[in-house]
Amino acid sequence: MDPAARIEAQCRALIEAAAPACVAAKLQLACFERAGADGYRAARATVDTARAAGLLVLLDGKRGDVGVTMAAYADALYDVLGADAVTANPLLGRDALGPLIDIARTAGCGVFMLVRTSNPGAADVLDLPLATGEPLWERLARMADELGEGEPLHDVGAVTGATVPEHLARMRELMPRTPFLLPGVGAKGGDVRDLAPAFAAGRAGGLVTASRSIANAYEEHGGAPGDAALAEAERLRELAWSLA
Amino acid sequence: MDPAARIEAQCRALIEAAAPACVAAKLQLACFERAGADGYRAARATVDTARAAGLLVLLDGKRGDVGVTMAAYADALYDVLGADAVTANPLLGRDALGPLIDIARTAGCGVFMLVRTSNPGAADVLDLPLATGEPLWERLARMADELGEGEPLHDVGAVTGATVPEHLARMRELMPRTPFLLPGVGAKGGDVRDLAPAFAAGRAGGLVTASRSIANAYEEHGGAPGDAALAEAERLRELAWSLA
Repeated sequence: MDPAARIEAQCRALIEAAAPACVAAKLQLACFERAGADGYRAARATVDTARAAGLLVLLDGKRGDVGVTMAAYADALYDVLGADAVTANPLLGRDALGPLIDIARTAGCGVFMLVRTSNPGAADVLDLPLATGEPLWERLARMADELGEGEPLHDVGAVTGATVPEHLARMRELMPRTPFLLPGVGAKGGDVRDLAPAFAAGRAGGLVTASRSIANAYEEHGGAPGDAALAEAERLRELAWSLA
Repeated sequence: MDPAARIEAQCRALIEAAAPACVAAKLQLACFERAGADGYRAARATVDTARAAGLLVLLDGKRGDVGVTMAAYADALYDVLGADAVTANPLLGRDALGPLIDIARTAGCGVFMLVRTSNPGAADVLDLPLATGEPLWERLARMADELGEGEPLHDVGAVTGATVPEHLARMRELMPRTPFLLPGVGAKGGDVRDLAPAFAAGRAGGLVTASRSIANAYEEHGGAPGDAALAEAERLRELAWSLA
């Protein structure tokens, strides 16, 4: 099989195995783009597979650009690829996020804005102290809160890295109605039990993401890859539900 | 013609008309991605057209993600699509930019890191004053300077929005060997004559980018689209050379 077909087959197997314990599939676009035009087609096929399995689809591309370009990305992500929600980078400010949010809102879709990521280097920029005394991520959290609309949950979410659990309570304080996307669990070293403050707004207040810890569960726990993936997804779901 | 074929034909006509007055073609990836897999193929064909016309190729995708994902983007941009250089978003810090820069360096390619963009909303985040007294973009400028290597020009460039010409002298002070990518000229309201401080490092110290002002020159100046595009590109080149 060519690389794109292998990627598509791997995603299909994983989705069909783990879907019963999940609410959404998060696709990392870079992993499809590296296979070129065929990879793009594999991304769309994977979106269809996820939807057929009853999952919402989150496309993780972290796009961020000026208004007219962001509208073109919105076309690519929501219309062409079929996302229910996407991740977006706020570095270029409100007039970069605005067109994406407007288009998403009209289509009944969502945007998760980066607020604090879970990589060590996030400290280089996102943790910089501002003149006001707050770190940059707190300012971005305020922006996410202001950009969102809706009750009881906003339609603009926030990516809130789970490797800094001590910050989650502060994030929830700054963004009381914002859905949190919580990466950094499992392979990246985070622990679901640290995420309790994210669920202060109720169960739907947080989406726990796990990729390698589910996909590679058979390496750690043995068994068939699909069975191990489902078991790991079920374990994470039970943990998350026990917190909410 | 389908959308991707129209995009490819438009790009080919523009490149073949304006190439004699240009050193590089900058492709905005969003405009190709909105046409799906066929758009991805059109992007690769446009890269080949630009190279055949003697141009360097800059892919403007402003990607920014954690290390392993950034390496996948590097594959997509340099290997699959054939970029000589790309734009990148530094919000996630050094361990996001590092893998991209390492791969680019090994391949003899370049990275232009966002430092200050030319959109009004850039003030929302990039101009935020830090506790040290400097705006965030100055900190990013220091990061760009530290990440670059090479004499007389670094292999890591900076995107330095030309709608804030009063900042260019400061940017050049903070990044003495960094190639500047200078958007915001023409349709976006910038003026090439404001860019003189960017060229303090010599002619190669700055790349002036213009998109709509070249592509749509016939609307303002009349004549055949190709002739008008070439005339506008020549006008911008002469202005830039007069400053360097």
